[in-house]
Amino acid sequence: MKIDNRHPRYLSLTLREKLVDSVATGITSQAGLIAHGRGEAFDYLLGEKTHDFAKRAIRAGAAYLLLAKMPIISVNGNTAALCAKEILALSKLLDCKIEVNLFHYSKERVKKIEAYFKKIDGKTILTSRLMQKIKIPEIASKRAIVLREGIGKSDCVLVPLEDGDRAQALRRMGKNVIAIDLNPRSRTAECATVTIVDNIVRCLAKLSGEIRKLRIEDIEILRKIITKYDNKKILEEAVKRMSYDKRSEQRTK
Amino acid sequence: MKIDNRHPRYLSLTLREKLVDSVATGITSQAGLIAHGRGEAFDYLLGEKTHDFAKRAIRAGAAYLLLAKMPIISVNGNTAALCAKEILALSKLLDCKIEVNLFHYSKERVKKIEAYFKKIDGKTILTSRLMQKIKIPEIASKRAIVLREGIGKSDCVLVPLEDGDRAQALRRMGKNVIAIDLNPRSRTAECATVTIVDNIVRCLAKLSGEIRKLRIEDIEILRKIITKYDNKKILEEAVKRMSYDKRSEQRTK
Repeated sequence: MKIDNRHPRYLSLTLREKLVDSVATGITSQAGLIAHGRGEAFDYLLGEKTHDFAKRAIRAGAAYLLLAKMPIISVNGNTAALCAKEILALSKLLDCKIEVNLFHYSKERVKKIEAYFKKIDGKTILTSRLMQKIKIPEIASKRAIVLREGIGKSDCVLVPLEDGDRAQALRRMGKNVIAIDLNPRSRTAECATVTIVDNIVRCLAKLSGEIRKLRIEDIEILRKIITKYDNKKILEEAVKRMSYDKRSEQRTK
Repeated sequence: MKIDNRHPRYLSLTLREKLVDSVATGITSQAGLIAHGRGEAFDYLLGEKTHDFAKRAIRAGAAYLLLAKMPIISVNGNTAALCAKEILALSKLLDCKIEVNLFHYSKERVKKIEAYFKKIDGKTILTSRLMQKIKIPEIASKRAIVLREGIGKSDCVLVPLEDGDRAQALRRMGKNVIAIDLNPRSRTAECATVTIVDNIVRCLAKLSGEIRKLRIEDIEILRKIITKYDNKKILEEAVKRMSYDKRSEQRTK
């Protein structure tokens, strides 16, 4: 549907239509559209801005990813539809792989998403069909299926738009989880090592920027960033920001 | 997709799938799925409960609808998919009509939703095809098209899951707007006469219950409810509740 550009929510509506289009191509699941809506609501409460608590989480996430022996990026349909290019740039920067992992799983959709990435740049995306799978215990969804040489072996997983059930399981397996999640009270947000409470569309480029800045730093500086980082505090700040009354701001102007 | 009933969010996921199914039958639009997701997020922040501020709004909404000369219920695809039966029960109770009004408009979808209602009970749903349309000024979407003998003539419109643009336009036309909206900071919520910040799935039966209670009351009592009602205060309470920290509750247990 063509959105009338006089509509006050034109930009948000246009992004929505982009995602709807990606259902047609088989990249996004329909339930993925609902998940996007949830993100929209939280972003609305954030004033659709990257706040200081997100910037600090981005910095800590960058440090974790740089210190990891084998970092990996886990992507789903929405991540692919919204920012495949930014994910590919990040994987090159980190010299790490990308693995497709879906809540609404089907072999065909995994294949389609992998092909979508490969069409842009095929070097870093893992090909599920050719690799051995293992099952993460205690996950009540198809998210349990991961690649042995991918997420299976990794020690730090970047999980944008994640299912809480799996984030917890990855933590139990001793992996560091860097989550991008607009809901500061989700199970993913609460159990992740680092939670970036921000819109994926805004924060991926910022994460790449931070990695470029930090990779030339001494390893001790990265360790210090991690030691000083308090994810619980970050989440509290995000919740606080969401309850902030924008009308009181207008009154003081 | 069949949801594993061990998943901690089983109920919410099942409701989601119900809506996904209604895309297949042409009742819900795909962008409607995204809108549902936004609602889910706000409901999550509400703890998925009907709070006191919603109950007071339901009471005021009931009073407005009972005092109206010609109340009407405006429905979209999501409302139909989630609670057609409750909407029909409400229209009988109020002896009022139901009009289909869509943001993602198509003649076919209007027809399908009307047919869906008629299949359950045909008496109160208006048939768009047979009626004269008028256009509400200053609305940048197909929501502008309404039926002259329906919303056009009504003095009080119940609008569940509404587009903010149109809610404002209806108010400018001098109509009372009773909104059901989980986002207390939406334009709909802020401009409506009464905003019920609650999940439509929970509150419609409660609204019917309140109407049954109040319709035997003296008209002066209804007027008093309206006079005392303060929608701004209700919205402030809803925002406050959404920022409430559930972890502090757990600590005191």
